[in-house]
This record gives sequence, structure tokens and C-alpha cells, in this order.
Amino acid sequence: MQSAPSIQTLLDEFSRLPGIGPKSAQRIVYWLLNSDRATSERLAEAIMNVKDSVHFCKTCFNYAEGDCCQICESPDRDRGVICVVSEPRDIPPIERTHEFSGLYHVLGGALSPLEGIGPDDLHIGELMARLSSSEVHEVILATNPNVEGETTASYLARLIRPLGITVTRLASGLPVGGDLEFADEVTLGRAIETRRTL
Amino acid sequence: MQSAPSIQTLLDEFSRLPGIGPKSAQRIVYWLLNSDRATSERLAEAIMNVKDSVHFCKTCFNYAEGDCCQICESPDRDRGVICVVSEPRDIPPIERTHEFSGLYHVLGGALSPLEGIGPDDLHIGELMARLSSSEVHEVILATNPNVEGETTASYLARLIRPLGITVTRLASGLPVGGDLEFADEVTLGRAIETRRTL
Repeated sequence: MQSAPSIQTLLDEFSRLPGIGPKSAQRIVYWLLNSDRATSERLAEAIMNVKDSVHFCKTCFNYAEGDCCQICESPDRDRGVICVVSEPRDIPPIERTHEFSGLYHVLGGALSPLEGIGPDDLHIGELMARLSSSEVHEVILATNPNVEGETTASYLARLIRPLGITVTRLASGLPVGGDLEFADEVTLGRAIETRRTL
Repeated sequence: MQSAPSIQTLLDEFSRLPGIGPKSAQRIVYWLLNSDRATSERLAEAIMNVKDSVHFCKTCFNYAEGDCCQICESPDRDRGVICVVSEPRDIPPIERTHEFSGLYHVLGGALSPLEGIGPDDLHIGELMARLSSSEVHEVILATNPNVEGETTASYLARLIRPLGITVTRLASGLPVGGDLEFADEVTLGRAIETRRTL
């Protein structure tokens, strides 16, 4: 295939992005070629703006533009509950549920002895400092429901419980709207194990 | 959802691209936030480079960086066959087949009375000029197998045949590796109608 060099370079750069294969990259590049210059300018500028202006919130380690992220700064959030997540990308899905109005704490990963990630590599010290100096009465452990996430949750639960703070974990079970027939055994087993009285 | 403004802007810009929904945009934006500055710079630069350096080939109206595109300029291409396509984006899939080594001509669309696109809106005059002044012995009509593409192909065939040039059309039929069971009736009907003697 003979594309002009600058087209090939852009195809390569887009193909590098997660979830974008060569065909999607091609579709995007031809779309950009077809649209006006301002569209490309806005995209290129937005990419560099994010790199220039975004860093970590000094309280919760979410992405922020100022010293603190918008959630930590908001007067409407319940300062009594902290939801602990592995990565900043875990916050938007929780926000979209509108079920949580407390603060967050981003660990920056999960414990993984295999990859050599120990407690000192995560923002656990900062979490403990926040808990000891504030009016937090509940910590929700929202690390992923996989081996690393569960390990991290158990570790944190052991650390936090002695402070007299309620420690909770997101429920595992059947997806809402899902089919029993298609549930995997581990999820179904967990749903039976943690069944609720009605 | 409360994202930092520059993150929200970038999410919006990525969501505008074809085939990228809000979730893919989010995945890409968090990936860019996680990677180094050089990655974002390369992407932003590649986007603007394409806009700055790419225009239309003056012979075939494919995208080009110089006066002519790499295909028109290549000494290895067969100048006796021209493949007519609607858009520049139709060229890469044909190139990937390695079945065609001739030149292209991009119409810049297809005839569509409904959308008010007539012969004068397409590069048909330029095609006829190329045909009358060169050694072309075959024109392959590779417009899309839909109403507009078929209309355009019939129109062009009527124009070109009087020049004594062979006019061919891409075959329609069952996709290779496909299942008869799942073929739509129109495609299967076309495959029966244009069956070959073995």
C-alpha cells in the first residue's frame, strides 16, 4: 500500500492508541482529511492541552488541573465517605451511576507480588494520613474484582478497620439485565454466596 | 461526571471522530494521560502535518504530498489500466489485494440525483481528458455496489465505450469464506445471475 508519508505517519500514530486497529485508524485519517482544518487543529490542541495542564490532585491523586481535582474541591461532596480506586479511569464510571457523592482516593495501581508492586508503590500512606486527620466514617474499597484488586482490598481492610472506620467493598454478582444462563461460574458462585434476604 | 475541563474537551474531540464512542474516547484519553509527553506530541504533530502537506493529486485526485500521488509517479504501474473509484479511501483496500497494478482516478463522490450530485460535480471531465490523451486500454469501474455507485458506473460505461476502451466492473457475489446460509438475497441473487462456467 502506498500512502503519502504524512498519511502513513498519522495512520501509525492512531493505530498505536488503545482499541484502534489499522481499519479504524484509516477511517479516522480519511475523515480528518475530508474535514476542515479547524477540526484537526482543535483535536491537536486538545491533545497537547491535556498534557500541559493535567497533573495529579495532591489530595486524592485523581487527574486535576489545579492543585486539587474538581471532586475534592466541590462543596457538595460528602466528606465522610472515601471511595478507594486503583486508577483515575475508574472514577468516571462510578460518577456516572450517581450513587456516590463522597470523595475518592486513587491508589495508582493494585498490589501485585508477581509484578513487584508492594504497598510502598501505591498511595496507601497518603490514604492513611487522610483517614487519621479527617471525619471519614466509611471507606468503600472499589478496586477491581480480580486477584490484584481483591488482595489490595483485603490488605487495606486490615489496615483501616483498627481506626474504627467502616470498611465496605463493592458487591460482586450477576450484572443487572443479565441472564443466569450466560453467567460464568465464578460470578454466579459469588452471587449465591453473597445472596441477600428479601 | 466531573472531569477536568481540558480532559472533557479532549473527550469531546475524540468522540467526534468516526467509530469512536464516549467509552473508546475515554479509554484513549486515559491512555494518553498515562503515556509520556512525546507520544501526545507525535500524535498532535502528525495530525497537523497531514493537514499542512496533503492535497489532491492533479492527475488522479488521490491524496498526494507533491503535485502527483505516489501511485501516479511510480514507474512500476501499468499505465494502460485505470481503476475509477469514488473516494481516495477506496484506494488502500484495492492496493492491499495486490491484484491491481494500474493507475487510479478518484471521482470525488458518486452520482446522486437525490443529493443533487450530477456529472459536473465529479472529476468526470478530467477522466475523459486522461482517456483521450493516453494509451489506456481498460477502465475498471470500482464505484461502490450500491444505487449511487451502480448509476455512476452505468453513466461512465456509456461515456467511455465509444472511445473503444474496454470497460469492466468489479464482480458482485458471495464474500470468499462466507456462508450461503447467511448471504442476503440481493447478493445471492447477483451471484446466481453472474455465475461463471467452470
